[in-house]
Amino acid sequence: MSETTIPAWQVPAPPERLERVSRLYTYAVVGATGAVGREVLAILAERGHPISHVRAIASERSAGSSMTYGDSEVPVASLTSDSFAGIDIAIFGASAEVAREYAPAAVRAGAIVIDNSSAFRMDPRVPLVIPEVNGKELDGTPSLIANPNCSTILLLVALDPLRRAFGLERIHVATYQAVSGAGLAAMEELREQTGAMLAGRDATPRVFKEPCAFNVFSHDSTVNEADGVNGEERKIIEESAKIWNERIPLTPTCIRVPVLRAHSQAVSVTLREPASVDEIREVLRAAPGLRVIDDRAANDFPTPRKATGGDQVLVGRIRHDPANPPDAFGRSRHLCLWLSGDQLRKGAALNAVQIAERVISRSSG
Amino acid sequence: MSETTIPAWQVPAPPERLERVSRLYTYAVVGATGAVGREVLAILAERGHPISHVRAIASERSAGSSMTYGDSEVPVASLTSDSFAGIDIAIFGASAEVAREYAPAAVRAGAIVIDNSSAFRMDPRVPLVIPEVNGKELDGTPSLIANPNCSTILLLVALDPLRRAFGLERIHVATYQAVSGAGLAAMEELREQTGAMLAGRDATPRVFKEPCAFNVFSHDSTVNEADGVNGEERKIIEESAKIWNERIPLTPTCIRVPVLRAHSQAVSVTLREPASVDEIREVLRAAPGLRVIDDRAANDFPTPRKATGGDQVLVGRIRHDPANPPDAFGRSRHLCLWLSGDQLRKGAALNAVQIAERVISRSSG
Repeated sequence: MSETTIPAWQVPAPPERLERVSRLYTYAVVGATGAVGREVLAILAERGHPISHVRAIASERSAGSSMTYGDSEVPVASLTSDSFAGIDIAIFGASAEVAREYAPAAVRAGAIVIDNSSAFRMDPRVPLVIPEVNGKELDGTPSLIANPNCSTILLLVALDPLRRAFGLERIHVATYQAVSGAGLAAMEELREQTGAMLAGRDATPRVFKEPCAFNVFSHDSTVNEADGVNGEERKIIEESAKIWNERIPLTPTCIRVPVLRAHSQAVSVTLREPASVDEIREVLRAAPGLRVIDDRAANDFPTPRKATGGDQVLVGRIRHDPANPPDAFGRSRHLCLWLSGDQLRKGAALNAVQIAERVISRSSG
Repeated sequence: MSETTIPAWQVPAPPERLERVSRLYTYAVVGATGAVGREVLAILAERGHPISHVRAIASERSAGSSMTYGDSEVPVASLTSDSFAGIDIAIFGASAEVAREYAPAAVRAGAIVIDNSSAFRMDPRVPLVIPEVNGKELDGTPSLIANPNCSTILLLVALDPLRRAFGLERIHVATYQAVSGAGLAAMEELREQTGAMLAGRDATPRVFKEPCAFNVFSHDSTVNEADGVNGEERKIIEESAKIWNERIPLTPTCIRVPVLRAHSQAVSVTLREPASVDEIREVLRAAPGLRVIDDRAANDFPTPRKATGGDQVLVGRIRHDPANPPDAFGRSRHLCLWLSGDQLRKGAALNAVQIAERVISRSSG
């Protein structure tokens, strides 16, 4: 049942929904058994959300199982258009198809929907939000909010402070993306295939077309035959322009690496105003959601291992572009850096939960 | 015994050495038990070199063992300054320290030395050669020839045809480097650590400071504390300038990935003259040492798996930079591409053997 023709998210959420005397909220997590859904449940529990009830929702085949939420188990219910009665906040960690079909029903039922899929990201009626970057878009308490693509989130959390401080003129980024972006089955495929290879056996790829064990490959999203840009690269370009409300020329290359759940990125930027490495480090150290790991002497920089399970985007290898060395004052407009961030947390579930927190804090503030 | 003060390689090799009536040559492979040395032996055998004798040489602790050469076993001799009597061509696949100590002795003994280490690469008296790019540097039959760094070789094999056809103005490259560049022990560390992780055990890094299983990390070479550029990045910059005899502004970021033996690179370039994707593909298809794998519809592009064991650098994802779309004629100066090449073969052993072949063919031509 497709209901995308009903623009329910054009009206703000009903104020009474977020102004309960108890300040306890009811949550639904759609796709609760998937890689992102599990992480949403874990993060809601660990951050101590003011929650009266969590409803875990998944497809028919998972119904009847249960998921861990804090110290308790919650039963998994099957997704229907009636799933959202009494729900204040629904976090969708499912496919774009599921979101297109069920998000309108959730909004009509009075929930504020935060959708992690690509379904509504480029819809001009729907805010696309990274709280650290454009959290103010939540001020109108929209009914439907889109969570950006994981690579977009990690890149913009790192670059937005530089954009604010020095201006940004040009971006090159090459990604080193974990398999978790393709879900739990992809993570299992990496483990299984790696074990098979170590045992000298072949393993047939299922989730990915290319073997993922001890291999890297161009991102598995569809490649546009006309211009050769793949879906993941297009998302970074288009979502960045929407979130920043400014189209900064951006050249992405998106690649999968045999890493379980944290993405990394090699980034080169041209600033509008020159800056020294110390000035850049200062700006990044003071920025929300970031941790600078940048010890040249110890060769200690961000890695996906260091980022896994954490809330922050790690940034390091902060240096002037050697092709454009700094001026006599140690400043240049040409900068390189390297970052890692947990794809399932800040790249997906955590960002969605932070959106929920900001919506709640606004309503109870 | 250091003999680097004797510039023996300034004199050309004695002509009689390469003008035997039999046209059969004697080879020495130094570091024969290492990752590169093994590959040199395999490649010499499979390419059917006109060889009368191969001497496998390694450090004291490997002496007495034997190595496979074609269908036979060759004993491993211990490296001394007397190791090179009667040798026509000595391929060094050992450390820079070993090369500095023993290459001069080999040259004095009358051998033509091809050294895979960094010891002599930037020495202005020593040619640094990728046969497809600057093979003409071998015309004077130098006594000592340096083999470039693996990342430099792969990048320049792919970019040199574009430089010749359209001119090159600017290069960005992010590498995805296999562990093989750090030797057999690193390959073993990746296998062991991966197995341990899959079994739920921890494994202490030995070769690399960072864990390499299911992880990526900034290249393990020393980082210059003043400018933040690491040794691998510096090699790409400096070696490219020497090989091309032209300093094209180049911005590298070098990263290790959990891949056994083939490197990949995400490359963005600015050409001097605009070109269409078809024109670029044609140039690359016609170029030596390259194979174009670029099927957008099938999402079929180079991977380290496809490159492993092969002689060619694989290149694909050939596209205009989306930040600089093409003109009305489908041409632009801004191009992206993606490549993979076997680090142990074209990145090291094969390039050295190709240098030997070119030296031999000149002398017998």
